[in-house]
Amino acid sequence: MIKFVAPQSRAACLALDADDPLRSLRERFLIPDGLIYFDGNSLGPMPRAAAAALARTIEQEWAQDLIKSWNSAGWFDMPSRLGDRIGALIGAARGQTVVCVTTSINLYKAIHAAVGLRPGRDVIVAEAGAFPTDLYIVEGAMTAAGRPMQRRLIRDDVAIEELLDEHVAAVVLSHVDYRTGELIDVADLTRKVHEVGALIIWDLCHSAGVIEFAFDAEDVDFAIGCTYKYLNGGPGSPAFISVARRLQALAHNPLSGWWGHAAPFSFERDFRPDPGIRRFLCGTQPILSLRGVEAALDALEGVEIADLRRKSSALTELFMARVAALAPELETVTPRDPALRGSQVAFRFAEGYPVVQAMIERGVIGDFRAPDIMRFGLAPAYLSYREIWDAAEILAECVRGEVWREPRYRHRHAVT
Amino acid sequence: MIKFVAPQSRAACLALDADDPLRSLRERFLIPDGLIYFDGNSLGPMPRAAAAALARTIEQEWAQDLIKSWNSAGWFDMPSRLGDRIGALIGAARGQTVVCVTTSINLYKAIHAAVGLRPGRDVIVAEAGAFPTDLYIVEGAMTAAGRPMQRRLIRDDVAIEELLDEHVAAVVLSHVDYRTGELIDVADLTRKVHEVGALIIWDLCHSAGVIEFAFDAEDVDFAIGCTYKYLNGGPGSPAFISVARRLQALAHNPLSGWWGHAAPFSFERDFRPDPGIRRFLCGTQPILSLRGVEAALDALEGVEIADLRRKSSALTELFMARVAALAPELETVTPRDPALRGSQVAFRFAEGYPVVQAMIERGVIGDFRAPDIMRFGLAPAYLSYREIWDAAEILAECVRGEVWREPRYRHRHAVT
Repeated sequence: MIKFVAPQSRAACLALDADDPLRSLRERFLIPDGLIYFDGNSLGPMPRAAAAALARTIEQEWAQDLIKSWNSAGWFDMPSRLGDRIGALIGAARGQTVVCVTTSINLYKAIHAAVGLRPGRDVIVAEAGAFPTDLYIVEGAMTAAGRPMQRRLIRDDVAIEELLDEHVAAVVLSHVDYRTGELIDVADLTRKVHEVGALIIWDLCHSAGVIEFAFDAEDVDFAIGCTYKYLNGGPGSPAFISVARRLQALAHNPLSGWWGHAAPFSFERDFRPDPGIRRFLCGTQPILSLRGVEAALDALEGVEIADLRRKSSALTELFMARVAALAPELETVTPRDPALRGSQVAFRFAEGYPVVQAMIERGVIGDFRAPDIMRFGLAPAYLSYREIWDAAEILAECVRGEVWREPRYRHRHAVT
Repeated sequence: MIKFVAPQSRAACLALDADDPLRSLRERFLIPDGLIYFDGNSLGPMPRAAAAALARTIEQEWAQDLIKSWNSAGWFDMPSRLGDRIGALIGAARGQTVVCVTTSINLYKAIHAAVGLRPGRDVIVAEAGAFPTDLYIVEGAMTAAGRPMQRRLIRDDVAIEELLDEHVAAVVLSHVDYRTGELIDVADLTRKVHEVGALIIWDLCHSAGVIEFAFDAEDVDFAIGCTYKYLNGGPGSPAFISVARRLQALAHNPLSGWWGHAAPFSFERDFRPDPGIRRFLCGTQPILSLRGVEAALDALEGVEIADLRRKSSALTELFMARVAALAPELETVTPRDPALRGSQVAFRFAEGYPVVQAMIERGVIGDFRAPDIMRFGLAPAYLSYREIWDAAEILAECVRGEVWREPRYRHRHAVT
């Protein structure tokens, strides 16, 4: 990667925007006027074509064509058709990915399958700092594993290498840390996990659609992730699961519903799993929400993830440099080395919550993670260098103005 | 119930329609011109208000308000808010129902919880003739039960009473048989299951929204069901699960994701289930599809299920009487006693498949279940007596015309 030197003026940012090869991509998304949206790592904006695509699905396919749309509109195949398209974004060849249910449930299926594929082992390794649902699901999957299992946690004082041994069945790791934005070395860790004979499950929630991932090339076993962040599929849009082809035939999905059956319409009495990735489906999927995912994948059509990654590194570099210059009291949590960070920037600041609220009031939408993390997702598909420049100014104004003295910024809402 | 005497003329049907107290309800649904839709037991039609409600969610809540809609548009509470409304339709007081994921996954959770609540028992009883996903999920849940379990099947030659004993942990029964339309006596069977100390799980897929169910009054333990049939929530709209309040505190959900946590936004490291029904949630739900469910519940607002049931019994009675008169070669599979049938009518006929195809071509949408069942869902919310009369005529014409001699009606599609 050619080293990016952060521009030193707003005019230089505007010049970068004018030269941005991804510039036209923004037109594919509806960004409300005047808003600088740094929360695409939580809920991506609406692809402009989504409204019409959904209206067609609602008013024509559902309302007019009714039941026949299961065939004529391709509803039934959506989980695998969209799965293959997501697979293409994460380096997984066709037939290894389906879109369905939620990240949590897909992780449950992946852990259960991994434990079944490693029958003599009783340990699941996870990160203490993972997004909590990953830890909760490890607990749940252990209760349903069919044998006593234990959870080992990677912590700041306990490195993964110390936890890997011949007892480990599976390791769950996040490609990008949801708070700090730290990016993990997939090749290195996948290799280490495989060296002890365990299986790796990568959580791509904070990287799918914005950072390259080499599912096949790195011999990854399982990947899961959501579609409503950098993939922009809409609120709560269904998640994905990828299972390496070499594992599929022996991978057991305990959520063995009819959509995962080898012949779902022959109505057999006993479960006989689909030979391929569709065995990881279960029941009827929410078609309206799947259409949102499809429109979002259309919006990324023809775009190289490598190009998004390059711009993402530049945007995060610019934001970190400007904030360091303008608001040095904020502690930068995200790695300064672009190779070690995802597409978000996080700062630690005791008054982070009111600052984020004040920024929202001034048109910059970021978010906050307790106790003191200000988090900004910088999605390269629709953000400009100029917006990064302006947002850093607004952040600095809020800090210099000590907005935390104003009571209205202190009231807390729960947000996802 | 006052005995309904089927009208003997089309004019008498039109008179019944003119007097129908539910007549105005049809206006709340979009029924394509000229179509007689007898497949609402597979995919309900679109409530007219759904298109606008979904457009608002897509274009305002998602596109304009973005992440703040999780609070401002009430997205986060939808599973329990809609759950309580479905609870009201099935006799379950508030705080016992959530809308989420699929029927199959909700059944998995119910079986797992029931097995955990009956630790000394190792048998799950299910119907051999259940919709196959119920049987498949029993298999899957057994593999994840934490102890060896076995499945006992109720068959034509093996009545449930012979299968119930002190080894049974849970019994899964369908309120209405998906093929024959037979309605099961909830009070009688719930009592028999409880007499041996087992827990009952009722599958309400083919009754919720059209037949009364007394979740609380009959001391039911668990109920699950879908929202896209008689509830008209849209293709693949999320399902529901009801868990009796008395069981909730000890009911374990292995799909222990963050939405089921007692404090999902405190990001604790260990899972601590919500004290109530929300422990049966897991991950982020598909908001667009949930809005479809909400619009559908709005369309049934102010309607008594007892009134729907009364009309449903009359519609099914009329259809059975007319078909028996006009096409006696069809074997009526559905019970003639209205107290013993749901809201659908099924006929066995060797040439059922081409007849259903020919009827579709003539504007009557029914469906077919292999090997020889013609199935017609008669939804009282939007069907008229006149339509029933006309559909029976069309069916009879197809039979008299021996449409199965025409090759174009023999080509088979898979439909759900």
